[in-house]
Amino acid sequence: MNPADPAAAVCPAPLPETERVLLGHGSGGRLSADLITRLLVPALGAAAPGGPLEDAAVLAVGECELAISTDAYVVDPLFFPGGDIGALAVHGTVNDLAMRAAMPVALSIAYVVEEGLPLDVLRRVATAVGAAAHAAGVPVVTGDTKVVGRGAADRLFVVSTGLGRRLPGPAPTAAGARPGDVILLSGPIGCHGVTVLSTREGLGFEADVASDTRPLHRLVATMLTAAGDGVHALRDPTRGGLASALNEIAAASGVGMEIEERALPVPEPVRAACELLGLDPAYVANEGCLVAFVAPGHADTVLTAMRAHPEGAGAVRIGVVTDGGPVVVRTAMGSRRVLDLLAGEQLPRIC
Amino acid sequence: MNPADPAAAVCPAPLPETERVLLGHGSGGRLSADLITRLLVPALGAAAPGGPLEDAAVLAVGECELAISTDAYVVDPLFFPGGDIGALAVHGTVNDLAMRAAMPVALSIAYVVEEGLPLDVLRRVATAVGAAAHAAGVPVVTGDTKVVGRGAADRLFVVSTGLGRRLPGPAPTAAGARPGDVILLSGPIGCHGVTVLSTREGLGFEADVASDTRPLHRLVATMLTAAGDGVHALRDPTRGGLASALNEIAAASGVGMEIEERALPVPEPVRAACELLGLDPAYVANEGCLVAFVAPGHADTVLTAMRAHPEGAGAVRIGVVTDGGPVVVRTAMGSRRVLDLLAGEQLPRIC
Repeated sequence: MNPADPAAAVCPAPLPETERVLLGHGSGGRLSADLITRLLVPALGAAAPGGPLEDAAVLAVGECELAISTDAYVVDPLFFPGGDIGALAVHGTVNDLAMRAAMPVALSIAYVVEEGLPLDVLRRVATAVGAAAHAAGVPVVTGDTKVVGRGAADRLFVVSTGLGRRLPGPAPTAAGARPGDVILLSGPIGCHGVTVLSTREGLGFEADVASDTRPLHRLVATMLTAAGDGVHALRDPTRGGLASALNEIAAASGVGMEIEERALPVPEPVRAACELLGLDPAYVANEGCLVAFVAPGHADTVLTAMRAHPEGAGAVRIGVVTDGGPVVVRTAMGSRRVLDLLAGEQLPRIC
Repeated sequence: MNPADPAAAVCPAPLPETERVLLGHGSGGRLSADLITRLLVPALGAAAPGGPLEDAAVLAVGECELAISTDAYVVDPLFFPGGDIGALAVHGTVNDLAMRAAMPVALSIAYVVEEGLPLDVLRRVATAVGAAAHAAGVPVVTGDTKVVGRGAADRLFVVSTGLGRRLPGPAPTAAGARPGDVILLSGPIGCHGVTVLSTREGLGFEADVASDTRPLHRLVATMLTAAGDGVHALRDPTRGGLASALNEIAAASGVGMEIEERALPVPEPVRAACELLGLDPAYVANEGCLVAFVAPGHADTVLTAMRAHPEGAGAVRIGVVTDGGPVVVRTAMGSRRVLDLLAGEQLPRIC
């Protein structure tokens, strides 16, 4: 925070509470947003992207409408019911592309490996990457592997980047939600976060619940075919859960939202685990569902199309976009509470 | 190595010497090649890329000829004379695209950060990323940041992915070198590796030498304009140095090479450091030079074009491609020695 530092001139307000990186800076909550908007983007200077923060960047190369997205995976443990770090890396990137109406055409995978990791662990992860990519219909075209000494990394990190080709029509954007839009959710929430946490800590809930990690690009293609430009915004509620995704869209679009609590599909094991652990399922990470903001005239068509698709069989309508104000939840008893962006970390290393 | 494992059927020969990941698996030498060809690529199965291992993958999306490349950076220290991990991440990816005759159009940057890292360190790295990207004329369009607990990563790792647009004409390829091709080197070798090692260990050589990290795409464009499809193969000799790059091209192209030792430009501080440390400059990493395999009829034109360019001012002719056999060096005294691929790690965490 040296005032002579040119970056400080662009970003004068010091980041709150700390001069060091906290776990919460990677949480997907308010600290993450602060880190991005007040440090990382200003530091990039003239090389920084413009516009709202999106799951994937859209760009035109010649005649081609493309999208690109990168995600780092540091999940602990590496393997858990329903998935592993390799499947997560593929699905997360495929899904980020899909949220901008792009179908994946190529993936790259980078590994940072700790010296001493059993080769078989690396083989299992790479096999999972290959299987997930093949199932999603996308080749892994390039990659890189670096090894650091014992203790310089915790086993294995995976970074995946996806190149996608945009479907025709305008891309859904975080800034696209409009008052009156119907909010649709493709399936149950909380499964991924509870599964990873329970497996890591040996809590036992992992016997009854599994990660929802799955690719959503085919579901998105179905939705866009059903409604075209009636789908205004899409987001997969990963880190920070549904509540953070809703707040990000609300902020980028300059709108409010009203969510019906009883419409939220929370599986019983997730509810039980959250009650015991003092977590709110609305903030628990998902890796296989999406939230869509759809023009009211198209909502029923899109919902029907989603339910006809295996990845959207549990789709529900959860609320509406309002003119402004916060994201509020109407509880089963009729009261209203604000569903705010969490400051920091509810669950570290969940993806 | 469970024989029931489907991956084992594709990759029956166990990796030599170890069932665990060694530092050498990330060195760019023979262990790296083994890891890629005998574990990572077979594990990908149907999602694996075909063809030789290249710096960047070339792919067509509709009418667009694109290239994509990913690199993970784990260099220790983060800052050193001539550069830092941020500049390295930009230049390395820009250069990998350039080796396939692609000009960069977009970069993504992912950070894996250790909890407790001073925010100012992250800001300095992000500022360096932005400055290097701006100087290379490419925007950083997207990214991701994950934070892991203290001790779960060594400060900061950076993964960069670049999307490039292919220049017209066939892409140079690792398999493209032909007997009779002239081998050109764009500038001095060994500076990056010696600088990083000396800075890390406090050896003092870093007072007289600096990393050569720089973008090479404009030099490549100049070379291709001068010779078009006379440039058969290009490689930037990073991890594993010039010797590894020559061996990789020789293996992919099914050719041999004869290199003139006295033609190799080794700056005096690099020579002194290598003598003291028992290193061979031909195996020390570079981040700002390239080696080109050029049809004999085009070699003089390309060399002249390189020398007229700031990034190629020190370009020299270092040898010729032969019909087969190993990569050999003819020493100043007229003897010949084989310049083999190193098995493992000469210098860990150099990039």
